Amino acid sequence: MGSPYADPLLDPLFTTAEAADAFGPRARLQGMLDFEAALARAEARAGVVPAAAVPAIAAACDAALYDLDALGAEAALAGNTAIPMVGHLTRKVAEADAEAARFVHWGATSQDAMDTGLVLQLHRYCDGLEADLARLADGLAALADRHRATPMVARTWLQHALPTSFGLKAAVLLDALGRDRQRLAAARGRLALQFGGAAGTLAALGDAGLRVAAALAAELSLPLPALPWHSSRDRVAEIAAALAILAGTLGTLGRDVSLMMQMEVGEAFEPAGPGRGGSSTMPHKRNPVSCAVLLATASRAPALAGGLLAAQVQEHERGLGGWHAEWQALPELARLVAGATRHAAGLVAGLTVDAERMRANLDLTRGLIMAEAVTMALGERLGRMAAHERVAEASRRAAAEGRRLRDLLAEDPAVAAVLDGAALDALFDPLHYTGSAAAFIDRALAGHRGG
Amino acid sequence: MGSPYADPLLDPLFTTAEAADAFGPRARLQGMLDFEAALARAEARAGVVPAAAVPAIAAACDAALYDLDALGAEAALAGNTAIPMVGHLTRKVAEADAEAARFVHWGATSQDAMDTGLVLQLHRYCDGLEADLARLADGLAALADRHRATPMVARTWLQHALPTSFGLKAAVLLDALGRDRQRLAAARGRLALQFGGAAGTLAALGDAGLRVAAALAAELSLPLPALPWHSSRDRVAEIAAALAILAGTLGTLGRDVSLMMQMEVGEAFEPAGPGRGGSSTMPHKRNPVSCAVLLATASRAPALAGGLLAAQVQEHERGLGGWHAEWQALPELARLVAGATRHAAGLVAGLTVDAERMRANLDLTRGLIMAEAVTMALGERLGRMAAHERVAEASRRAAAEGRRLRDLLAEDPAVAAVLDGAALDALFDPLHYTGSAAAFIDRALAGHRGG
Amino acid sequence: MGSPYADPLLDPLFTTAEAADAFGPRARLQGMLDFEAALARAEARAGVVPAAAVPAIAAACDAALYDLDALGAEAALAGNTAIPMVGHLTRKVAEADAEAARFVHWGATSQDAMDTGLVLQLHRYCDGLEADLARLADGLAALADRHRATPMVARTWLQHALPTSFGLKAAVLLDALGRDRQRLAAARGRLALQFGGAAGTLAALGDAGLRVAAALAAELSLPLPALPWHSSRDRVAEIAAALAILAGTLGTLGRDVSLMMQMEVGEAFEPAGPGRGGSSTMPHKRNPVSCAVLLATASRAPALAGGLLAAQVQEHERGLGGWHAEWQALPELARLVAGATRHAAGLVAGLTVDAERMRANLDLTRGLIMAEAVTMALGERLGRMAAHERVAEASRRAAAEGRRLRDLLAEDPAVAAVLDGAALDALFDPLHYTGSAAAFIDRALAGHRGG
Amino acid sequence: MGSPYADPLLDPLFTTAEAADAFGPRARLQGMLDFEAALARAEARAGVVPAAAVPAIAAACDAALYDLDALGAEAALAGNTAIPMVGHLTRKVAEADAEAARFVHWGATSQDAMDTGLVLQLHRYCDGLEADLARLADGLAALADRHRATPMVARTWLQHALPTSFGLKAAVLLDALGRDRQRLAAARGRLALQFGGAAGTLAALGDAGLRVAAALAAELSLPLPALPWHSSRDRVAEIAAALAILAGTLGTLGRDVSLMMQMEVGEAFEPAGPGRGGSSTMPHKRNPVSCAVLLATASRAPALAGGLLAAQVQEHERGLGGWHAEWQALPELARLVAGATRHAAGLVAGLTVDAERMRANLDLTRGLIMAEAVTMALGERLGRMAAHERVAEASRRAAAEGRRLRDLLAEDPAVAAVLDGAALDALFDPLHYTGSAAAFIDRALAGHRGG
Repeated sequence: MGSPYADPLLDPLFTTAEAADAFGPRARLQGMLDFEAALARAEARAGVVPAAAVPAIAAACDAALYDLDALGAEAALAGNTAIPMVGHLTRKVAEADAEAARFVHWGATSQDAMDTGLVLQLHRYCDGLEADLARLADGLAALADRHRATPMVARTWLQHALPTSFGLKAAVLLDALGRDRQRLAAARGRLALQFGGAAGTLAALGDAGLRVAAALAAELSLPLPALPWHSSRDRVAEIAAALAILAGTLGTLGRDVSLMMQMEVGEAFEPAGPGRGGSSTMPHKRNPVSCAVLLATASRAPALAGGLLAAQVQEHERGLGGWHAEWQALPELARLVAGATRHAAGLVAGLTVDAERMRANLDLTRGLIMAEAVTMALGERLGRMAAHERVAEASRRAAAEGRRLRDLLAEDPAVAAVLDGAALDALFDPLHYTGSAAAFIDRALAGHRGG
Repeated sequence: MGSPYADPLLDPLFTTAEAADAFGPRARLQGMLDFEAALARAEARAGVVPAAAVPAIAAACDAALYDLDALGAEAALAGNTAIPMVGHLTRKVAEADAEAARFVHWGATSQDAMDTGLVLQLHRYCDGLEADLARLADGLAALADRHRATPMVARTWLQHALPTSFGLKAAVLLDALGRDRQRLAAARGRLALQFGGAAGTLAALGDAGLRVAAALAAELSLPLPALPWHSSRDRVAEIAAALAILAGTLGTLGRDVSLMMQMEVGEAFEPAGPGRGGSSTMPHKRNPVSCAVLLATASRAPALAGGLLAAQVQEHERGLGGWHAEWQALPELARLVAGATRHAAGLVAGLTVDAERMRANLDLTRGLIMAEAVTMALGERLGRMAAHERVAEASRRAAAEGRRLRDLLAEDPAVAAVLDGAALDALFDPLHYTGSAAAFIDRALAGHRGG
Repeated sequence: MGSPYADPLLDPLFTTAEAADAFGPRARLQGMLDFEAALARAEARAGVVPAAAVPAIAAACDAALYDLDALGAEAALAGNTAIPMVGHLTRKVAEADAEAARFVHWGATSQDAMDTGLVLQLHRYCDGLEADLARLADGLAALADRHRATPMVARTWLQHALPTSFGLKAAVLLDALGRDRQRLAAARGRLALQFGGAAGTLAALGDAGLRVAAALAAELSLPLPALPWHSSRDRVAEIAAALAILAGTLGTLGRDVSLMMQMEVGEAFEPAGPGRGGSSTMPHKRNPVSCAVLLATASRAPALAGGLLAAQVQEHERGLGGWHAEWQALPELARLVAGATRHAAGLVAGLTVDAERMRANLDLTRGLIMAEAVTMALGERLGRMAAHERVAEASRRAAAEGRRLRDLLAEDPAVAAVLDGAALDALFDPLHYTGSAAAFIDRALAGHRGG
Repeated sequence: MGSPYADPLLDPLFTTAEAADAFGPRARLQGMLDFEAALARAEARAGVVPAAAVPAIAAACDAALYDLDALGAEAALAGNTAIPMVGHLTRKVAEADAEAARFVHWGATSQDAMDTGLVLQLHRYCDGLEADLARLADGLAALADRHRATPMVARTWLQHALPTSFGLKAAVLLDALGRDRQRLAAARGRLALQFGGAAGTLAALGDAGLRVAAALAAELSLPLPALPWHSSRDRVAEIAAALAILAGTLGTLGRDVSLMMQMEVGEAFEPAGPGRGGSSTMPHKRNPVSCAVLLATASRAPALAGGLLAAQVQEHERGLGGWHAEWQALPELARLVAGATRHAAGLVAGLTVDAERMRANLDLTRGLIMAEAVTMALGERLGRMAAHERVAEASRRAAAEGRRLRDLLAEDPAVAAVLDGAALDALFDPLHYTGSAAAFIDRALAGHRGG
């Protein structure tokens, strides 16, 4: 069938073929047709339409049978895609079985087909996304485990703070990703069938409404909502928010890797490969392409989600404008997050880690990074304020004179009185000042295995 | 203590005194001080600091003792509020007990105090918000129950669609509000203690880190997280999203009431009262003030939440800029949502409903609004397409000639052959065409009672 | 070539074929190729590359010659579209003239081609948009002129306020649209050539950089910037903001028309037509499709523009993520605004205005809407406070008793003493209380003619 | 009068005292009172109200005379601040001159006072902002000039690209800032008087409306608009967008400085000072506080501006919700941008530049950064493709073997045939490969002097 991408130049960079496919026009049409086929089956089961009508309707519910351009042209006049879909479907059914055509879309409204179709697309999309998320989580877990004793600089405000381990950095992301997946699961649990008919009352079905709704949800394996939700868009806003929150976690990964990949830092690198991250004029350059995608997605997702949050205010029993604003924005958000997740999984799986460079960078402050460790140790002996002052004074001199903090402290009689050279050496070993890092890694791994 | 409002002119309209108070500068300081007091207790319990240090520290952890202007001036240089807080607190403790002062903020970092303080503020805030949400839900439940048989026009695309009941309109909002409260509860469940020390490793506590963390969470009655989350801002983004989604539900209420309150519609009205909604020059006017607040909040909240989603990308072990962007945006969002919730609860509790006008508006189309009802009924006899055509033709004539649809259908031999006058009259009674509305109301009420 | 729409189901509703085409993948490629062809010509003119190289390069700069899928697949690895474009172009040139191929993209960087290509797309797009804006402005001017004496209710806070004229409503929109067009023109004036080479220094061109840049801008009829602007994205943000501001004006039109089109108001209607705004089950319904598009665009545009504003923070000499975030967001914004403008122009050109209904709605308050007119007139005689009180009292009674304000005032001795029946009748004629409305309309029309 | 800050803990970090003051509640009230005083004068001049009424009205238009809490409490009921303001003002005037009190707010509407008051606040604010912008521009110009020959690494995608000069980096920002100031000036030019009365027709002024409006604009030194703009919010959206675009430029400065300030890069540093950027536990740390503020503002401003863009859709002659959404969001945005501009000016004025480190970082790739320079030079002799291949091959070896690119090229016979050692040395001097950088700096400086 050719490329699934709406934009063949840019989509391969920013999304996955699966997500492009899941939200392509053909899939949108198929989502609505799946609703129509299941509706016929459910209504037949409930005795609302004749069972004999089902085969012809079901057979016509195949998106490959329809001309998307013709449907789109009619949708531009009708104001939504379901109106022409129902028209074309009815005519297609009538070609095979005129009697069956009477029962197409029976008791439903456009928004029932469109919202349920969207929900079906989203569930399929989430299945695919979850596979990439699992791969990403496995990759982070492997990094956390492998690098539990790889010391590196912890940086706050983009400045050297204290030692940490690269494994803990991975574990923190893994922990966040676990919450992101919980939120997506919760949001999916609320992505329910839409079925209310033209006014949200199922009036056209008389007293069979609830029975048909239950059968329809079962047919489609969708949650059955307590009530129709035509103008209650919190379910849509929630999945959008969950995706944007995930995008933030992925953006954090992209930001950190791109910072570590700076020439002057050189601690970790995106996987290389032919054609990947090259520059047209600078042969030495290796652009962090996946990081760019992660950061671009983390930049775009909040705006798309914010737009969907704003679109929630929908009038009366079906909104004007707000509903329409969802149709392209939510798929766009979903496509981007799928692309970023795939990039993240590949980035983590193929990450090149330079543990030596991490260790070397820990020494760049000539020991100042260990100031807190020393302050804490000294604090137990001299009191916190006095320790703070001795270390601060030595730190100032270390910075001014380009000497090592350890040596200056060794020369300070107040310090020397309580710590000898060997004790000082031990205090300046970053491996001995990572506190609960290993325990935190274990917790993240346990959460990952259990989650 | 004077007004709790930062902006005495506008805040009384847009927020509540409780929310203003919960996020005022004094409360921000108190949140951090609560962290410091609990930290001393937890560390004493864990044997990390002497128990004797606790009383002096705890006694100094009272926000009323500090000069906010002085703290703010220092914070402008230091870049955050915790650094001067720790300095002032340490000096205050030292006045009473120099030895105790050595143990202030032991092993913690600024962000531990600030994030945990914020989390404490948010939990207190949510307690208050939940009370107003419960009141709002009760009000909606009462409306849903009382107006289960009050027929009104269902409007889609701002056009008359079919009959519904006012009770169902209230029930749909009640159902959405239930999900909003679930989301808030889930978000609160993830608003956990922040405690990781300068690098997120609790290194300064040696091997006592996890014990202190557990004791600290217990002291503060906060969830204990698996790992510190200094640069994993999904928890913050999630509560922001949950508040913005709620704002959308509230905005929907405001939009619908303001539309029903139009002179030409006249179906429902905000409560009146002295000084409320008056105009300076038009004595007859009653401005929907609460609706304005609901809509303004629904307009502002997505942008604030979107900004917080965007701020998630925080560098390494503590972000630069993104973290700072949260400090005023999240309180502002929380304040607005509290104000809107309070307005909504009052609006619903005091709503004036004009059931007669609702009934009268159902007749404005001279029966066209019952076209679907008639089409469905006719469809069972004539087939859906034929029924659709008969009714469409009669509808066109009804619109063109200003006559009633019922009378034109009665004159149509094809219709008259299958429906007599009494049958037509019954079909045109909106009360008989609200389908599962009552059942949906029951479900919403059951959910409310159970929820 | 088939449909220009990336999404054949939804794009015909939300954008125009011209805008879809202007920002389609083929046009993106052509924009970059136009840059490359002009670069060769400019460099030949400046003596930097041999004139003999130009024909082969220019001949290969035709987007129809390239395989978009192949380019897209390479772009997914390279991280941008220019890198594979340059590779394919160079090979294509080499097939015809190996010597010429040496001079492809000479001294330029990927971003030069991509940004300049985008700028070319935007200028072409703006030409088309301006044509629709002119049509829309002409339509509003015609409405303003035709309806200068068509009285209608002015509504504030969605409540009846005072009389105005429908012409003034159109004139206010026309006036805003004039500013919107000024802003777009100013933004276009800053959409300049991008040309700086890999570091923004044009180093590869030695001392010929400025000459080539000037020649290149002339070749492309683009503004020549003082400096390259690879990481100064204010130009991009400005055009995005100008488009979003325009979307707000269009949304205001859509909101007002949709409110006037409510069954209960019935003052103005979208143009009707076969297949337009129909409902699948309610034959009487005429959905305001263009209003829906205007409102959806006004809902989406701010988020897209906000996202582009946020993407401005781009690192050093070329950003990571922020730049990438622009590539799809700006075209999406532009496409939506083009669609909304076209809808608005059609809506205004074909608007059905019911002047009788406007007049009838003025009477719905039984004269209360004239209270200010009467208060002002009485104020001159009784003092403003006293007048306010008399009218307020009569207004309360009018509302309570369902009587006409004029009659109640006639019965008030204080009023009767200064105004007789004829004077009261005159005061209650809305035509006599539209103040400077006609003068304002004249100003808007003068601005339109001059603008 | 005490602190001007609404939030004494955080505002000193994020805004300026002047901006806090300009948008404080007292200033908001004074803005409205300035409108009222000028209105009385203008109407007296136009003969609409007696000249004798002016003194008492003008005397009462002093914000210090009013109780903000009382006004705020009434505003919470009335729905805006102007209604209680007019009530209190009228009573205050009446205490001095009962007759004059009749003419308070004559012919105006609440929104006239509020919008004009806001416009006055904005103009005063912009005067102050412009002073800081001028200081910032002077600082950037000084850096551009001083460092025109300070070579440094140009970085794209956060990777080393080519040499540039630090002066050019400053010049690019200066150039962008010039456009930002132009946009602000254009936006100010459209921040006009609001004066239309209750329906935007000035009906209460009979045929004197236009005369009074012109006199009022003159009194207030404000642009006179062609028409009132109560529901045309493009002027508000435009100033918001201009501020957010400026915030983006400032954020770019903050991002670049914070990246240069990384320990591993060490090229430039925020000014130091007592209490500035300190850490509570890490004595060696110097946090980039101003960068944090610039980045936080650049993160928040787009969301605030996006919210204001979204609020543009305001109903009929005065909006419901959208207008209200502006009241706090626009001042918040303005406050933040003022704070960021002040931080930026101080940051640039006190920036510590380490030119030696910049030069040293240029050598980190062992000459790979000069690959383009060499490729261009070789390309003229060997053809571009061949040159590209020779340099790429040598670059690969340089990276793999840790040797210098120059030495590897010198060993390549193809290269040695056309370039001797001295020629290679010259090619590897970054000072000789900054192309038009100096010329670009001159242009930026010329624009600054002329602008």
